[in-house]
Amino acid sequence: MELQSAIDLERTTNERVVLRCRPEGLLDENDVEHQVGVPLPELADGQALVEVEWLGVDATVRTWLSKAEGYLPAVAIGEPVRASGIGRVVATRAEGLPLGHRVYGLPGWQRYGVVEEGPLATDLGPEVDAPALLAVLGATGLTAYVGIVDVGRVEEGDTVVVSAAAGATGSIAAQIAKLRGARVVGICGGPEKVRWLLEDLGLDAAIDRRSEDVHARLGELCPEGVDVYFDNVGGPILDAVLDHLALRARVVLCGAISVYNESHRPPGPSNYFQLINKRARMEGFLSLDHWDRFGEVAEVLGRWLAEGKLTYRLDVHEGLGSAVGALNALFTGANTGKIVIRL
Amino acid sequence: MELQSAIDLERTTNERVVLRCRPEGLLDENDVEHQVGVPLPELADGQALVEVEWLGVDATVRTWLSKAEGYLPAVAIGEPVRASGIGRVVATRAEGLPLGHRVYGLPGWQRYGVVEEGPLATDLGPEVDAPALLAVLGATGLTAYVGIVDVGRVEEGDTVVVSAAAGATGSIAAQIAKLRGARVVGICGGPEKVRWLLEDLGLDAAIDRRSEDVHARLGELCPEGVDVYFDNVGGPILDAVLDHLALRARVVLCGAISVYNESHRPPGPSNYFQLINKRARMEGFLSLDHWDRFGEVAEVLGRWLAEGKLTYRLDVHEGLGSAVGALNALFTGANTGKIVIRL
Repeated sequence: MELQSAIDLERTTNERVVLRCRPEGLLDENDVEHQVGVPLPELADGQALVEVEWLGVDATVRTWLSKAEGYLPAVAIGEPVRASGIGRVVATRAEGLPLGHRVYGLPGWQRYGVVEEGPLATDLGPEVDAPALLAVLGATGLTAYVGIVDVGRVEEGDTVVVSAAAGATGSIAAQIAKLRGARVVGICGGPEKVRWLLEDLGLDAAIDRRSEDVHARLGELCPEGVDVYFDNVGGPILDAVLDHLALRARVVLCGAISVYNESHRPPGPSNYFQLINKRARMEGFLSLDHWDRFGEVAEVLGRWLAEGKLTYRLDVHEGLGSAVGALNALFTGANTGKIVIRL
Repeated sequence: MELQSAIDLERTTNERVVLRCRPEGLLDENDVEHQVGVPLPELADGQALVEVEWLGVDATVRTWLSKAEGYLPAVAIGEPVRASGIGRVVATRAEGLPLGHRVYGLPGWQRYGVVEEGPLATDLGPEVDAPALLAVLGATGLTAYVGIVDVGRVEEGDTVVVSAAAGATGSIAAQIAKLRGARVVGICGGPEKVRWLLEDLGLDAAIDRRSEDVHARLGELCPEGVDVYFDNVGGPILDAVLDHLALRARVVLCGAISVYNESHRPPGPSNYFQLINKRARMEGFLSLDHWDRFGEVAEVLGRWLAEGKLTYRLDVHEGLGSAVGALNALFTGANTGKIVIRL
């Protein structure tokens, strides 16, 4: 398609945060370079340029910065950090991404990003409730929904444990499990998060991993065992839950934030063969694979939001200069709810 | 039912091997006591006494000797070591287990053992091909079949890796995978086992874990990744295979013989989150749960045996005095095929 543009593509420059070297441990400000005055990228057929308005901050971004290939290639040195976000189309060569529309995609840590017509760029129309989309209706909610419903197959009466339950995905997953009639125990770090889980999200119980013995508390709170474990953290908490699985339990591997910053892989769950004793299943998944269900799931979650059955909390950081700190907050446990960056 | 007996229950005495203390590492002769002249047990309604003719030697027996509860309670100190076997009914209070019939059950390491009418005691009729039953048609074959067909869902064209592929269960699992049209790579220890896998079982490739770099060889032999891994060993080999999973792979956890003798749980698979990257599943199972399919599966396996499509090898030890050594042979890798004890 012929190029259509709402801005002067020659004179407008880009601001972006590119990877300078691969981080060891938490991302450091010296691992990236904050660039201004950079020329805008050229658009190929089927692509659009968006002016980024919001960026989602997701733990998986940290995995993309390491050398080892995961489910997507590593971000190359010199390239902007890959990240999800919402932007307004300011130039387009894609019929499905018209000027002025908002697009949800992977524009990266930059003022202007390229999105490409296809499964990973969703046309949201001209207006959108961006915070609700980033916190609930987009990838975060899809991840929580697919994990609880499709992978975990949570049913009424199940005992469900969610780690990082006060985090973006965990908090939605825990609420979806409640809405399906499960008894839900959240694991989180700190008394304020415990309070939020119990009082605002209505979970049945919460464990403060910082002040409580997770293993012992699981034994008290789940005497019949854990039917579904939605795991965001890996590490010792995964091991503790494996020790309390019920027969035919499902361990839903959503993430492993306790290890994303490790240069050397730490030991895995030494209790994994509880999967044999309990005839249980541990399964990984990615919301990427389920993007064709974006609309279907967003409709369900949107209805629950409108009915007041889903609660979310937003932690807003301002500007690209806040990106490194915003990402690290996921791993230090500083946040409650969904971290986003407003540009 | 009234007691029926073919022997003098008063004057016949039992010979048995009971657990004296919990082993650390490999079972030691001093951990057990070989008793003779012991009175026969009394039979409750629904039970039968069998004169044991054959015992199967299975790695899972070692797990029953440790204190931690697995899928069955630990063997109590002073009790005979629990083990599968085939015996002839010499006294009965069970209508389904008539005098003179052979019964396949869990009589334990003793001359005369009690079996109980129910899912775990199978009436084999008066005559039976005991070696074929122990090596292929019984629990070993059921485990291999359920693992490959139901849990692994092996289909034509899949690349399947089997560890301990020259062992009892692994050798049957590998052959069933071949019969389903898969490409099968076996991992085993030593050149003679490699030869057996390639020449006698007809596997597509074999890796000698003692002399070869398993990780590197998997990369060469499975360039498109591993669709199904049938794991008998755990430990570093599980980690190596996790690094080579194909998308949507299935890791079938049958056993973990590399860790059964450890007093302290060794680290688990540090690569377990490859399950996320590859949207893969790791699932444990026990043939115990599938005992209702014994007849159905034995018929399929029996037909393949008769048609010459399944090969097995038997490693026969003689007498209860050989039991400790026979069990340990599983873990030192001394055996090829199925280890049994003839009484």
